[in-house]
Amino acid sequence: MQLGIIGLGRMGGNIARRLQRHGHETVVYDHNPEAVQDLAKDGSTGASDLAGVVASLTKPRAVWVMLPAGDPTEQTVAALADLLEAGDTIIDGGNSFYKDDIRRAMGLAKKGIDYIDVGTSGGVWGLERGYCMMIGGTAQAFDRLEPLFDALAPGYGSIPRTPNRKVADDRSERGYLYTGPAGSGHFVKMVHNGIEYGMMQAYAEGFDILKMKASPHLPEEQRFDLNLADVAEVWRRGSVISSWLLDLTASALAEDQELARYTGAVSDSGEGRWTIQAAIEEAVPTPVLASALFARFRSRQEHTYGDRMLSAMRYGFGGHVEVPQ
Amino acid sequence: MQLGIIGLGRMGGNIARRLQRHGHETVVYDHNPEAVQDLAKDGSTGASDLAGVVASLTKPRAVWVMLPAGDPTEQTVAALADLLEAGDTIIDGGNSFYKDDIRRAMGLAKKGIDYIDVGTSGGVWGLERGYCMMIGGTAQAFDRLEPLFDALAPGYGSIPRTPNRKVADDRSERGYLYTGPAGSGHFVKMVHNGIEYGMMQAYAEGFDILKMKASPHLPEEQRFDLNLADVAEVWRRGSVISSWLLDLTASALAEDQELARYTGAVSDSGEGRWTIQAAIEEAVPTPVLASALFARFRSRQEHTYGDRMLSAMRYGFGGHVEVPQ
Amino acid sequence: MQLGIIGLGRMGGNIARRLQRHGHETVVYDHNPEAVQDLAKDGSTGASDLAGVVASLTKPRAVWVMLPAGDPTEQTVAALADLLEAGDTIIDGGNSFYKDDIRRAMGLAKKGIDYIDVGTSGGVWGLERGYCMMIGGTAQAFDRLEPLFDALAPGYGSIPRTPNRKVADDRSERGYLYTGPAGSGHFVKMVHNGIEYGMMQAYAEGFDILKMKASPHLPEEQRFDLNLADVAEVWRRGSVISSWLLDLTASALAEDQELARYTGAVSDSGEGRWTIQAAIEEAVPTPVLASALFARFRSRQEHTYGDRMLSAMRYGFGGHVEVPQ
Amino acid sequence: MQLGIIGLGRMGGNIARRLQRHGHETVVYDHNPEAVQDLAKDGSTGASDLAGVVASLTKPRAVWVMLPAGDPTEQTVAALADLLEAGDTIIDGGNSFYKDDIRRAMGLAKKGIDYIDVGTSGGVWGLERGYCMMIGGTAQAFDRLEPLFDALAPGYGSIPRTPNRKVADDRSERGYLYTGPAGSGHFVKMVHNGIEYGMMQAYAEGFDILKMKASPHLPEEQRFDLNLADVAEVWRRGSVISSWLLDLTASALAEDQELARYTGAVSDSGEGRWTIQAAIEEAVPTPVLASALFARFRSRQEHTYGDRMLSAMRYGFGGHVEVPQ
Repeated sequence: MQLGIIGLGRMGGNIARRLQRHGHETVVYDHNPEAVQDLAKDGSTGASDLAGVVASLTKPRAVWVMLPAGDPTEQTVAALADLLEAGDTIIDGGNSFYKDDIRRAMGLAKKGIDYIDVGTSGGVWGLERGYCMMIGGTAQAFDRLEPLFDALAPGYGSIPRTPNRKVADDRSERGYLYTGPAGSGHFVKMVHNGIEYGMMQAYAEGFDILKMKASPHLPEEQRFDLNLADVAEVWRRGSVISSWLLDLTASALAEDQELARYTGAVSDSGEGRWTIQAAIEEAVPTPVLASALFARFRSRQEHTYGDRMLSAMRYGFGGHVEVPQ
Repeated sequence: MQLGIIGLGRMGGNIARRLQRHGHETVVYDHNPEAVQDLAKDGSTGASDLAGVVASLTKPRAVWVMLPAGDPTEQTVAALADLLEAGDTIIDGGNSFYKDDIRRAMGLAKKGIDYIDVGTSGGVWGLERGYCMMIGGTAQAFDRLEPLFDALAPGYGSIPRTPNRKVADDRSERGYLYTGPAGSGHFVKMVHNGIEYGMMQAYAEGFDILKMKASPHLPEEQRFDLNLADVAEVWRRGSVISSWLLDLTASALAEDQELARYTGAVSDSGEGRWTIQAAIEEAVPTPVLASALFARFRSRQEHTYGDRMLSAMRYGFGGHVEVPQ
Repeated sequence: MQLGIIGLGRMGGNIARRLQRHGHETVVYDHNPEAVQDLAKDGSTGASDLAGVVASLTKPRAVWVMLPAGDPTEQTVAALADLLEAGDTIIDGGNSFYKDDIRRAMGLAKKGIDYIDVGTSGGVWGLERGYCMMIGGTAQAFDRLEPLFDALAPGYGSIPRTPNRKVADDRSERGYLYTGPAGSGHFVKMVHNGIEYGMMQAYAEGFDILKMKASPHLPEEQRFDLNLADVAEVWRRGSVISSWLLDLTASALAEDQELARYTGAVSDSGEGRWTIQAAIEEAVPTPVLASALFARFRSRQEHTYGDRMLSAMRYGFGGHVEVPQ
Repeated sequence: MQLGIIGLGRMGGNIARRLQRHGHETVVYDHNPEAVQDLAKDGSTGASDLAGVVASLTKPRAVWVMLPAGDPTEQTVAALADLLEAGDTIIDGGNSFYKDDIRRAMGLAKKGIDYIDVGTSGGVWGLERGYCMMIGGTAQAFDRLEPLFDALAPGYGSIPRTPNRKVADDRSERGYLYTGPAGSGHFVKMVHNGIEYGMMQAYAEGFDILKMKASPHLPEEQRFDLNLADVAEVWRRGSVISSWLLDLTASALAEDQELARYTGAVSDSGEGRWTIQAAIEEAVPTPVLASALFARFRSRQEHTYGDRMLSAMRYGFGGHVEVPQ
């Protein structure tokens, strides 16, 4: 099949490459001409602007936008809406807020343009392992484009089949899922990232406890000086908490147990925040997911204003003076 | 009445002073002779060691230990146990762990010595405002020593009476309470401090949100540059969140809205930690009290090992590089 | 001064009464005619619709809307915008979302109508104690209407002055504060309520720990059967955690320590939720405020779907079967 | 090698079976004679009491205790200490508190008996997949008994090797690890379980958000009715949050998306609680791990006393009456 791809960063570029490897034809554009040239070497057709991408495709056309959420995606979708026609499809494969998808899909539907939102997990590993995709939008567009998703997905791989599955539809077992109307793909991906934050923080806290067990502040007979690289490694085999995140942790610890190349100022992105907003809208208690988000906020400040206020109160009622750290 | 007092720090010294002002007689000791001399000027009888305190008291004797929890209190109680006799009373007015009280009381009971544990709130303000006291231990000792507690307590003051109170016993309305067997006084005080942590953190987080509403990271039309001293002040009058802690906050903000004299490295003491341990033993969910404790732990570190691990995982799955703060 | 008041519920009705008592003139309307008649007995001028309110006022007119946030307020503000003219003022005294204020104020400014948002704390006690008010909007409208705010506010009362205050402006000391542009009043009130949730949950958790200390699941020598009404009472005097919320708690416990008339299904309103959203927008960590909100969500469910999933996982890896409670 | 095994429950029985399958010789005892007979059919030598186990073993003897933590383990270790001699080894393979290990090891060392604590993960799957083991205690005893651990562990299996590992010691890659002095094995296992709670809760919260997205309380155009079995399945392939816990979740959801066979009253065990205690001792902030524990506490109550107190306060300040759920 043919697919236009806008945005050739880490994700977009590899999506093009994986599709080419599976025999699909991609027409690509990026505001950086070098990125376009690189892809052209790998077999894609390069274009010099959005109109060029659209012009190179046969109807019904499909264009995959792989840009940062917010303005870049919004503007590109709007521009494509003007270039495309009824029967064509715009795919947002980035990390858009699902309410933006709902809004965009409604606008595009008036022009007869289908809208597909794809939550894409896989990061830098997707080219090799395949991408896990959660796909919302018009059912007819999903059906038409399914060969592309099939090619991008990991497939069954060597992962054991889940017992008890009775369903005929095996697409989720091959790594992609049609989740329903526009927005639902990004919604599921958003929650995926919320869970990811929670799991990461669970490991981080646990390893912190292990690390600090060697602290000179503890009584000497209560201290353990543990080899954390080995702990992560042993948990990879037969333990209840084995996971891909643990595999990555084991690899990082194998390189350097101190993780000294990292400062610990941890970024967060929209999905982690929107997950908590969605939970609040639904009145679902999510203490773990929220705590994980807050830990990232906190990691980027040396001290908060609130911390200083605590010290001020302690001074106020007890005359307590801060102890230098 | 007569009372021996061991430990003449901020709390012990003022307790002696307040008792003297109310016509009681105090015999005081501190390892720092200057502290003893200071109190002697205010009317107390100074002693040069524990034995001297005991020797200056008439049976049945009562000695109030006002020392840091842990070893200092433990050793002093043990030493007093050797100097005192059946019928005498040891009072621990510090911040001991309540299980230590239970253990000590059992040991002293074998010798016929009464044990009283007093959780004392009031900080540097107690001399003037009186101390709020939660008192566990032998009922007979409490009865005997009640005039002392009565003198130390704030009394009715100008605080409005609580509607609905039907009980004959008005001691809690005068600021002291017999809470039951040994350990119960410190247990109630421990929970008091746990609540204190939670309340303080609630204010701290709220003011942090107000403060950061002026942040240049927000869209300009969404920013407010609020006068936090005035906000704290207005909340003192008629709002649901008026409190003594808010009064102190208002005072600190009136002095300097930036709270620049504080770094924000916030200490915590035993009670906050033991509160969470007690909650866990009782299987009581305490997310707010635990979060408040953790915020203090976090305030004393620039970055945690766990933070670095989050960055390492993010690099592992997405190639994300930390953004300089 | 003259003021139109729309909405005569618990808050609106008492605001009218308090203004009348202070010599101001109120023109009132409610969709419930009985509420209007009640106020008329207390000296207000009743009106039979919005137009009637507007018609009874002299220019420049001011109308205070005291309705539930969301549609009722939105529609009433819109209707008033059509009835009023340049130079008039609309006051939203309810609990609107501050971003709605910003939007409304921009719209009304085009017509020359001033907009004031008042965050009002005081609940059922305001008539007697006065209302604590945080006031955003056009400075000129605030100046013009200040006598009304002055009358509604508690005034200095018997509350001790805050040490260190150097500022000439004593309005916050009298219980009302001009916080800045439209939305800032409701924003400060929103954070006030967020803090309120946190403080309430801090007390709730602490008393839960005290209550469960009598649990038969604990070893007998570790149990305390505490009189919680007395504990709340004693903390009212001289303790660090004394507050108005504690006063209310003491009153509820004095009536019934078991609090048996309450089931414990706790509502939450917009402000608590918006506070967390604001924190997330600002990247401010607010674990205590979020935990307090989540505890309310949780209180309204017997079991969550997530709880069942935990049990399913435990069965999956360990064959663990749920223990009947 | 020879090994005595005390306690033939789910774990102990399968440990014996796995060792027998690998050519080791086991002498087994359980207070339930049927359990002993079952194992005897699988090749173990049955014994009728502890002394019988000890008598059947050749020196230096090793006895593996696989009993519930607390009294059962404590008493059995004490009894074995009397039956065994210098040079023998007691292995505690259960879930003991690590401070109990430290204490026991010190006591046994005086008699020349080695003590080994094994944190064992693998649950009902261990017989087939092998057990992941974290092993503390005397180095000489670990060395002597290593063939047993090697047989019980999963081995390399089909799990990809961790990049960057430079170390010669590959035991952790085969699924068992010598962690250091007595107590360290159980300490690492304890933290493992703490992490497990956090991860489980992360998934539970995330799926709860997905589930409630179909709630009729949301605006209709914002609702998604998601197939959660398919969501879990698709996340197993190529997503960042793939894990063994997710595999189990996918299996449970494949059977019944409603998880209707579970009520959602979730047990917790010592490790989850001790993990938080350890974090508090070390001053490590662990909001996620603590929140996960508290969620389990909360799951076993319909309403808390604290919830009722919140309602009482709301009634007190605002006249709010609880809304029936």
